[in-house]
Amino acid sequence: MPPRDAAVARDAADPLAAFRAKFIPSASPAIYSDGNSLGPPPFSVRARLNAMVTEWANDLTGAWERWVDLPLQVGDRLGAACLGAGAGQVAVCDSTSVNLFKAVNAAIDGCDASRHEIVVAIDEFPTDRYMLQSIAAQREMTYVVVGSAAEAVDACGPSTAVMVLSAVNYRTGELFDVAAVTARVHAAGAEIVWDVCHAVGVVPLELDAWDVRLAVGCTYKYLNAGPGAPAFVYVARAHQDRLSQPLWGWFGQRDQFEMGPHYEPAEGVRAWLAGTPNIIGTALVDEAAAMIEKAGVTAIRAKSQHLVAYAIELADELLVSRGWSVITPREPQRRGGHLALARSDAQEVCATLIDQALVIPDFRAPDVLRLGFSPLVTRFVDVYDAIGAVASV
Amino acid sequence: MPPRDAAVARDAADPLAAFRAKFIPSASPAIYSDGNSLGPPPFSVRARLNAMVTEWANDLTGAWERWVDLPLQVGDRLGAACLGAGAGQVAVCDSTSVNLFKAVNAAIDGCDASRHEIVVAIDEFPTDRYMLQSIAAQREMTYVVVGSAAEAVDACGPSTAVMVLSAVNYRTGELFDVAAVTARVHAAGAEIVWDVCHAVGVVPLELDAWDVRLAVGCTYKYLNAGPGAPAFVYVARAHQDRLSQPLWGWFGQRDQFEMGPHYEPAEGVRAWLAGTPNIIGTALVDEAAAMIEKAGVTAIRAKSQHLVAYAIELADELLVSRGWSVITPREPQRRGGHLALARSDAQEVCATLIDQALVIPDFRAPDVLRLGFSPLVTRFVDVYDAIGAVASV
Repeated sequence: MPPRDAAVARDAADPLAAFRAKFIPSASPAIYSDGNSLGPPPFSVRARLNAMVTEWANDLTGAWERWVDLPLQVGDRLGAACLGAGAGQVAVCDSTSVNLFKAVNAAIDGCDASRHEIVVAIDEFPTDRYMLQSIAAQREMTYVVVGSAAEAVDACGPSTAVMVLSAVNYRTGELFDVAAVTARVHAAGAEIVWDVCHAVGVVPLELDAWDVRLAVGCTYKYLNAGPGAPAFVYVARAHQDRLSQPLWGWFGQRDQFEMGPHYEPAEGVRAWLAGTPNIIGTALVDEAAAMIEKAGVTAIRAKSQHLVAYAIELADELLVSRGWSVITPREPQRRGGHLALARSDAQEVCATLIDQALVIPDFRAPDVLRLGFSPLVTRFVDVYDAIGAVASV
Repeated sequence: MPPRDAAVARDAADPLAAFRAKFIPSASPAIYSDGNSLGPPPFSVRARLNAMVTEWANDLTGAWERWVDLPLQVGDRLGAACLGAGAGQVAVCDSTSVNLFKAVNAAIDGCDASRHEIVVAIDEFPTDRYMLQSIAAQREMTYVVVGSAAEAVDACGPSTAVMVLSAVNYRTGELFDVAAVTARVHAAGAEIVWDVCHAVGVVPLELDAWDVRLAVGCTYKYLNAGPGAPAFVYVARAHQDRLSQPLWGWFGQRDQFEMGPHYEPAEGVRAWLAGTPNIIGTALVDEAAAMIEKAGVTAIRAKSQHLVAYAIELADELLVSRGWSVITPREPQRRGGHLALARSDAQEVCATLIDQALVIPDFRAPDVLRLGFSPLVTRFVDVYDAIGAVASV
């Protein structure tokens, strides 16, 4: 085994090292390597929750004067911090699944009716595929499922209304060239909705510059906003008049408190709100955006790339000979923030690592062990110890 | 003005008086009479939020083993505490608007395709009407809007797929005979989706006994679970196999972590979950259910009826001569937990009451002043002082 000193030296040189102390330590001695599934809580969450309860107690319905704009204010902040999105294009609301439903329907309604296909790859995240199956069934469209993202892009043609792709694949950790894929799909006359769940907060996104029109994502992975925290949706300003979403709720209504007889969508991305947004959850997304602002998403990406590169280096040395294969792409610019290892008994290994409180990774059927290194809390020694633990099982 | 001593005496005899101390007092001296819009926070909310953050910090993804069932467990608890719903029929998730979208679509899909009408009254809560307009447009159905709830029931016939009605009207506070209306709509071969937002937690509901099939509601009014807290949906067990909702997300999938190629709904009401549920918000709904359990919804209803009766008595004495009319029904069994007063300058009066920190009511266009008396925190002296303040403006 290579010397642990190298990892210690890397930690000493880490410009983000101080951020680890901003997170509440776990009671478990296990190394947490599932930050791509659920990020750990920053200490600031407790103070913000208390402040929200105080605001709720003191101002009661009066607080809605401010809260009513919170989903868009936090959207703007998140957009600036890590989405490459100018103001007025991001709404924090609902779940990723519900936002995907809105975005895909908007994309379809924005297309010529002769385009009857919805395209997706079989290894796309399940909720995305299920939602597309539902939409295809409801709208009597054709659900086209292909073997890979590349095949999905190739499948986009004159019959395609929309395709959905994750910027970072949830299993392999592969990062796609969002700008290039978007351009190809648009060139085919189709729309693409990006799912950025596994990218946001760890890979700098440039949604405006990449000419993305629609994107959705969650906030409970690298953004650390808590289990099931509100998700977000991005709608490019230039397409906001053209793209309209189908969940017409009172928070998306132009003059909400007029309570008029007919739905008339509010201007801009506000029309993408539906029901009453969860305000306490949205406040935690605000905390998340503040943390990313402080650290800087470029610095986060740089550390993330070093962490994963180091993990691959150690995996090559310690795990490949033990039958593991690294299925995450080896080119740094083609991967996100997690490492995927495959072996037929990955499920048992995962269970053992958790049972023995060595490492908390996760398992994705049928044979993938995922190690998600949240850059603001993960040290190089954690990577060292985690790979060592996998080797020991 | 009648003597305030009578109000003091009523408070002394109030069996629920001790509950007021369980809520965080507001910093404002104004009497809070908007509990039907946003309930105030119980002290227990702070402890529960801290406990949730600790659980999140310590158990991280491991906590999902428990959290995955929380939306249904809390649904069961809420069902037993105040919905009259046996276990396995309530899911806490999403917003009321999104749950209404699910329920109305399920109702339509459960009907014969020849039924092409969606029926609603013009004074139904806006988000309900807007969502129905959207569904009618998407499905090329006929949106039938009539003048009142009674007309809506009368309008249900052989062409009706579904109607939507609030158990308690958000403006007038009128409480409908849920069992009788449900029976009439079912007799016409149509479905009815009940919106119980303004009833839940203050009017004992007996959804099972009343043969309700679909209901939705929020948790931030009389349940005090916080601004935009997760909503709920009720689907009667006998109809769960027949009624299926259109937002196919991974939390509604039968074997969620198999992540298989095809969506196959989970058994029972779990299939009504879509994306990842907001767990911290759901925990506050659990606190809400616990509070209702402790107080007992029958006792809450009894106090609520006394509060509103007292408010009407005072309004008759002090406000009618000043041009206000009481638009809430006068029969106790025909009203919910709030009092609606109408006068042409209601909006200005509402603003003055708030500006002078006398009372916090709310205004509903064009001329309604609502006084919502949350029975667990409102005293009879508050009612006395609130009506006196309205009279003084």
